[in-house]
Amino acid sequence: MFSQKLEKLTTYEAGKPIELVVREYGIKPKDIIKLASNENPYGCSKKVQEEVSKIVDQMSVYPDDSMYELKEALSKKFSVNDKNIIIGAGSDQVLEFAIHAVEPKKVLMANTTFAMYEIYAKHIGAEILKTESNFHNLDEFREKLSDNPDIIFLCLPNNPVGECLDWNDVEKFIQEVDENVLIIIDGAYQEYASFKNSNKKIEPKDILKYKNILYTGTFSKAYGLGGMRVGYGIANEYIISNLYKLRPPFNITTLSLKASIVALSDEEFVNESIKNNFIEMKRYEEFCKEKNLKYIESYTNFITIFVEDSTKLSDKLLKKGIIVRNLAGYKMNAIRITIGTTKQNDKVFEILKEMV
Amino acid sequence: MFSQKLEKLTTYEAGKPIELVVREYGIKPKDIIKLASNENPYGCSKKVQEEVSKIVDQMSVYPDDSMYELKEALSKKFSVNDKNIIIGAGSDQVLEFAIHAVEPKKVLMANTTFAMYEIYAKHIGAEILKTESNFHNLDEFREKLSDNPDIIFLCLPNNPVGECLDWNDVEKFIQEVDENVLIIIDGAYQEYASFKNSNKKIEPKDILKYKNILYTGTFSKAYGLGGMRVGYGIANEYIISNLYKLRPPFNITTLSLKASIVALSDEEFVNESIKNNFIEMKRYEEFCKEKNLKYIESYTNFITIFVEDSTKLSDKLLKKGIIVRNLAGYKMNAIRITIGTTKQNDKVFEILKEMV
Repeated sequence: MFSQKLEKLTTYEAGKPIELVVREYGIKPKDIIKLASNENPYGCSKKVQEEVSKIVDQMSVYPDDSMYELKEALSKKFSVNDKNIIIGAGSDQVLEFAIHAVEPKKVLMANTTFAMYEIYAKHIGAEILKTESNFHNLDEFREKLSDNPDIIFLCLPNNPVGECLDWNDVEKFIQEVDENVLIIIDGAYQEYASFKNSNKKIEPKDILKYKNILYTGTFSKAYGLGGMRVGYGIANEYIISNLYKLRPPFNITTLSLKASIVALSDEEFVNESIKNNFIEMKRYEEFCKEKNLKYIESYTNFITIFVEDSTKLSDKLLKKGIIVRNLAGYKMNAIRITIGTTKQNDKVFEILKEMV
Repeated sequence: MFSQKLEKLTTYEAGKPIELVVREYGIKPKDIIKLASNENPYGCSKKVQEEVSKIVDQMSVYPDDSMYELKEALSKKFSVNDKNIIIGAGSDQVLEFAIHAVEPKKVLMANTTFAMYEIYAKHIGAEILKTESNFHNLDEFREKLSDNPDIIFLCLPNNPVGECLDWNDVEKFIQEVDENVLIIIDGAYQEYASFKNSNKKIEPKDILKYKNILYTGTFSKAYGLGGMRVGYGIANEYIISNLYKLRPPFNITTLSLKASIVALSDEEFVNESIKNNFIEMKRYEEFCKEKNLKYIESYTNFITIFVEDSTKLSDKLLKKGIIVRNLAGYKMNAIRITIGTTKQNDKVFEILKEMV
């Protein structure tokens, strides 16, 4: 009954909520520190919480499907036209639209990068091409151009590794790529990268002049709305109008729409989160130096630390109620830790120092 | 750059929010009566509102992607196993998974039925087969079996028409269809239909014995959570495990997950909504009889009324702040009105009686 392509796909097994697993070790929910999904440890803006609370009686009502207000706010923020914007249920969904719209035979990405590129590409049976390095190495991308990818993914900065290319270098690369190849620039952590180093900053309006660039951004990270599933794509009208053809109506919730609109009006919360993030990140870097652990300089809200045995270490941390991401699945003997609040990080250092 | 299939697709143009249009006529938001999208006019359960309000500080946190609690609650309600359940961002998304999983060459549906069947099927370039009648006529479906559809859609009860087949008749039909053809039974309005007439009731557990039946349900209608985008599919493990391969992680929001779990614990709200719906529907039927308007007996929360000129009438209603669905796009000279609250319906009758 089902398409043959499904046979090659493995089911994404979420398993029991990790909180339940931790509770099996007798740890109280309030004592669990989850630093595994790069959520904003400062939560989200109080203004957003207030405004969303006010409209819980509107949960029965479909959202405004034109997403007029949200697009207005994004247009203003990025100095682009509303016709250059598409909203997705997370930027994931914009990636999904793009992949289904192009139906690529081959896609190209860094060896270690955001898992959904490969997952969505496999949904339509595309061949996955990867560069050799875990980092984005543009020379390796150049070499692979002769394999004729239809889509190239650049994750800037790169999840789950943390590094980030300079925009100048990316722009040179873009100019070497055939105009018929769609280049997707995933800027999920751009707010962090551009704060740390202006050379990493991508201005979405600068990509509009290219025929073949799609920029994606999200409210899940710096804006602290990971649970609300709102992201966006920015590109020229030709690209956006094509992606729009595959967008299901009402693809974000009524409360998510409100949350993201209000979030854009409270940049102070975002800036404060980012500032704190890098103050706390310094503590992780110092911890690593003290302990002689190799880490990757990060332009995000997480840090990737190489360890002796990442699987053993993550398990040991789990038993203490600290949830981190084991990167063994990416063939990296490393753990990825979301930078938490001062209090959370204190606890992490206290426990981690006994283990490494 | 884009797949050729896109050329045949038209963009879903949401346009300006209809509330803005009405405001252009100088009508205050509080005076607008929107009876166009079959939302629950009683909103959603107060318990749901309370519980969602309590977790607005959790908007930064991704939902439990196993959806353990929600599946537990649905399993209990429908006496099925959690492996028989998949959750979608609205039942729409479950339909989308099914269509992408089967990749049908041809799909079969009633002439007038839920628009998304055709839209999603076109996304993958399928040929659309339709029966002649606007109603579901199983003999017409039988005739079309020789055209070899890969998916058959049955909308029970049928949106936007309102009629509903008896389960006994549907079951006979199922047994005549080749086991390799996926039959999707869309039960978005089942809570209403089964309340009105037990012959219309579909027990999802009864479909598990068939190799090829997928049942879909939603929280958007009787449960009053249209804005929260939560639906579900129920089928045998073979079907569900295949659909699961195409499910993106975190496909509903943290607040939607909470809302739907709590909604299932407040059946009193649902029953009260349904009871009121049919009390008020009687008033529409009586109004139609008085005015000599033909209407379709409805098993849903809306009523389809044939009029002299549905486009003119919907426009006239719009100018008075009443938003209904004009079915001219479905080639029916009729309007579809969601059954509102007593107060809303009073206003509708007051205005409508001067127009028809």
